[in-house]
Amino acid sequence: MTSPDTANDFVFKEIPGGVTAPKGFRAGAISCGIKNPTATRLDLALIASDLPTATEACFTTSRVKAGCVRVSQQHVKVGDVRAIIANSGNANACTGPQGIRDAKAMTKATAEKLGVKMRQVLVCSTGIIGMPMPIERIVPRVGDLVASLNLEGSEQAEQAIMTSDTKPKTVAIEVECEGQTFRVGGIAKGAGMICPNMATMLAFITTDAKVDQSELKRATQAAVEQTFNRITIDGDTSTNDTVIVMSNGASDVPLIKSKSPCTEIFRAALRHVMMQLAKMIVSDGERVTKFVEIRVQGARTYQDAKAVAETVAKSMLVKCSWHGGDPNWGRVMHAVGYAKARIREELVDIYFGGLCATKGGLATNTPVKELEKVTAKPKFTVTIDLNLGDASYNVFTTDLSEEYVDFNSSEYSAAIHAKRQTGLA
Amino acid sequence: MTSPDTANDFVFKEIPGGVTAPKGFRAGAISCGIKNPTATRLDLALIASDLPTATEACFTTSRVKAGCVRVSQQHVKVGDVRAIIANSGNANACTGPQGIRDAKAMTKATAEKLGVKMRQVLVCSTGIIGMPMPIERIVPRVGDLVASLNLEGSEQAEQAIMTSDTKPKTVAIEVECEGQTFRVGGIAKGAGMICPNMATMLAFITTDAKVDQSELKRATQAAVEQTFNRITIDGDTSTNDTVIVMSNGASDVPLIKSKSPCTEIFRAALRHVMMQLAKMIVSDGERVTKFVEIRVQGARTYQDAKAVAETVAKSMLVKCSWHGGDPNWGRVMHAVGYAKARIREELVDIYFGGLCATKGGLATNTPVKELEKVTAKPKFTVTIDLNLGDASYNVFTTDLSEEYVDFNSSEYSAAIHAKRQTGLA
Repeated sequence: MTSPDTANDFVFKEIPGGVTAPKGFRAGAISCGIKNPTATRLDLALIASDLPTATEACFTTSRVKAGCVRVSQQHVKVGDVRAIIANSGNANACTGPQGIRDAKAMTKATAEKLGVKMRQVLVCSTGIIGMPMPIERIVPRVGDLVASLNLEGSEQAEQAIMTSDTKPKTVAIEVECEGQTFRVGGIAKGAGMICPNMATMLAFITTDAKVDQSELKRATQAAVEQTFNRITIDGDTSTNDTVIVMSNGASDVPLIKSKSPCTEIFRAALRHVMMQLAKMIVSDGERVTKFVEIRVQGARTYQDAKAVAETVAKSMLVKCSWHGGDPNWGRVMHAVGYAKARIREELVDIYFGGLCATKGGLATNTPVKELEKVTAKPKFTVTIDLNLGDASYNVFTTDLSEEYVDFNSSEYSAAIHAKRQTGLA
Repeated sequence: MTSPDTANDFVFKEIPGGVTAPKGFRAGAISCGIKNPTATRLDLALIASDLPTATEACFTTSRVKAGCVRVSQQHVKVGDVRAIIANSGNANACTGPQGIRDAKAMTKATAEKLGVKMRQVLVCSTGIIGMPMPIERIVPRVGDLVASLNLEGSEQAEQAIMTSDTKPKTVAIEVECEGQTFRVGGIAKGAGMICPNMATMLAFITTDAKVDQSELKRATQAAVEQTFNRITIDGDTSTNDTVIVMSNGASDVPLIKSKSPCTEIFRAALRHVMMQLAKMIVSDGERVTKFVEIRVQGARTYQDAKAVAETVAKSMLVKCSWHGGDPNWGRVMHAVGYAKARIREELVDIYFGGLCATKGGLATNTPVKELEKVTAKPKFTVTIDLNLGDASYNVFTTDLSEEYVDFNSSEYSAAIHAKRQTGLA
């Protein structure tokens, strides 16, 4: 049993600083009462590059896209992005043409204060769906937001994009290559039940490596596939999910193209930063208590392995058994059985941690008490070997807790009632 | 807004008696301590026809099939089924060749005591997956089981197949046609969270109408598609799901073929019985508190309508909002957006009950307090109009409750520990 995820042989030096660890990036945040005008938490963030950038972004594949997503998708095409403005408290989704106007107004105000073009600003939002943006509380404050930019502002920016996240999600690394160093830093927010119904995930990554646009696209797409896409179920994306990678070339490392001396280490560094953020997002899932890696191996094809891993990961009955620390391999078999993949019941092996619970589709003699020692842990791995081929896939997921249900049972009513109390609805 | 499900114009007279309401059927049950040797609840049921039958069955599409399913699939092909033996407390799934031997042993013992061939007996099991059948406690008791058969035994049989069901599920109707009457009766068990992870569903239906085998197949498949398949998500079937329809011709209604005078009313009667049972299963889902019908209309194709309905029905975030009585139409939009179907955000209308919450993808002015009056009810309908075409689909689903999670978090450990306490593990 080896991990299907052994691509990364590099060891990276972690440093503080998040998105402002790489040279030439500043960040800041302010509080403008987006969710609730009387609240004082940070809710509007800005990340800016002092230098021209190559920027690549991945957006939600949902057919219901937030206004900010539609605007950012257009802007990123033009190139040389200089800033990302992002808010929490309102998703600006299902808000129609007004939502697009509001998103544009945010980029316009930011561009004016930064002295760049509107198209050089991307915009992201996270929060409740279907409520108009309180744009009148945002635009007049963009001057203050720009004034808040500083070389150590990553933590404030991270605070401002958090919603139900309980912990900030930040990472930065320093990488040596060709006698020079470059840095990659990132911040993210997640916290909705990531799998299968991801609440909005935002991740902003900066690097002072100088990266050719087409290489940046390739590296970003590959890294997202191996990290953020492993914590979500294909197709189950939110209206707002966005990953943005900005490269400004402020370091002295030579230009990274498809086959430069630093290409491999850059790709690994980007993947490392994304993987750290992805794992932080799962670990901090709304009211979850278990972090479970599901590894499928021995599949006929990559698609089969992926289908099995995702089906098991999103089975409510399996998630409930994780929650109780119950090594219920029968429920795993049940989910394997209805996955849209080729499997043969009599060949399936299931391991909890390193312990074989199921061999050839049948219970083993491994004592349940031993299996329970694995599933009692806050973090464990379930390996499913289909014994049909060489393809593998892994996903990171969580249990399903009573608290998750309670937490998610009254968002809309609560938001409307809060608005009414403050005289806004 | 009309229901997509208007096919049934017949009104049926409900009668007591379940599967023993039709003439020529007997049922019975005994307690043989399958789950726990010291327990006294009924856990082994038998339904028998005194006359030859035409019998049709639909089984799980899971690739992981219980031993009883594999055996019944073979037996039903031979025709003239005379009996169904069914147990609760153990699913006989993931039990390998021994599970098949155990299932065959159950049919063999039953056949011997009834004086029929082994192949004329079907066998069904429901309960925990992955534990060997306590066949030594079952086979010696089959004589007692056969002795328990009686003309009013439907209720006992129903009791014996219940697992976590809190209510028995039974229905019978009397139908007039061509100056004669025939009856259709059924019992079912469900109770796992039906959607998306159906626990085992079993449904046994009897009729004393005389039905041609090919018409019975057509009628059964069509009725299942419009009833039981509307409470489950395509592919998300358990290892044991089974629906069996037995027709013994004990009534005087003339033979029903594809175009006989009584064909349409027979089809409607079968659909009616299945629909009643399907709704009872959803209403009695494990620890659920809401019964929600999701109607999708205006889709380009049937497949699109189905994909949207099922995606909304299985969204955990949507289910949590039902639980809290939260009219969170934004979450419905979010799920519509990631369904694998053609939708246009700006055309989507959403209704709670008869109230329009969303028009053209945007919030309406309907007061949230009015919407909350709908979602506060234990039973309501959510209609999603895609405004793209004429296709429609509907599913019946439930909320997701804290109690469901708790209830499903320790099944396997609890079963193993119970076995250990009774000296069996």
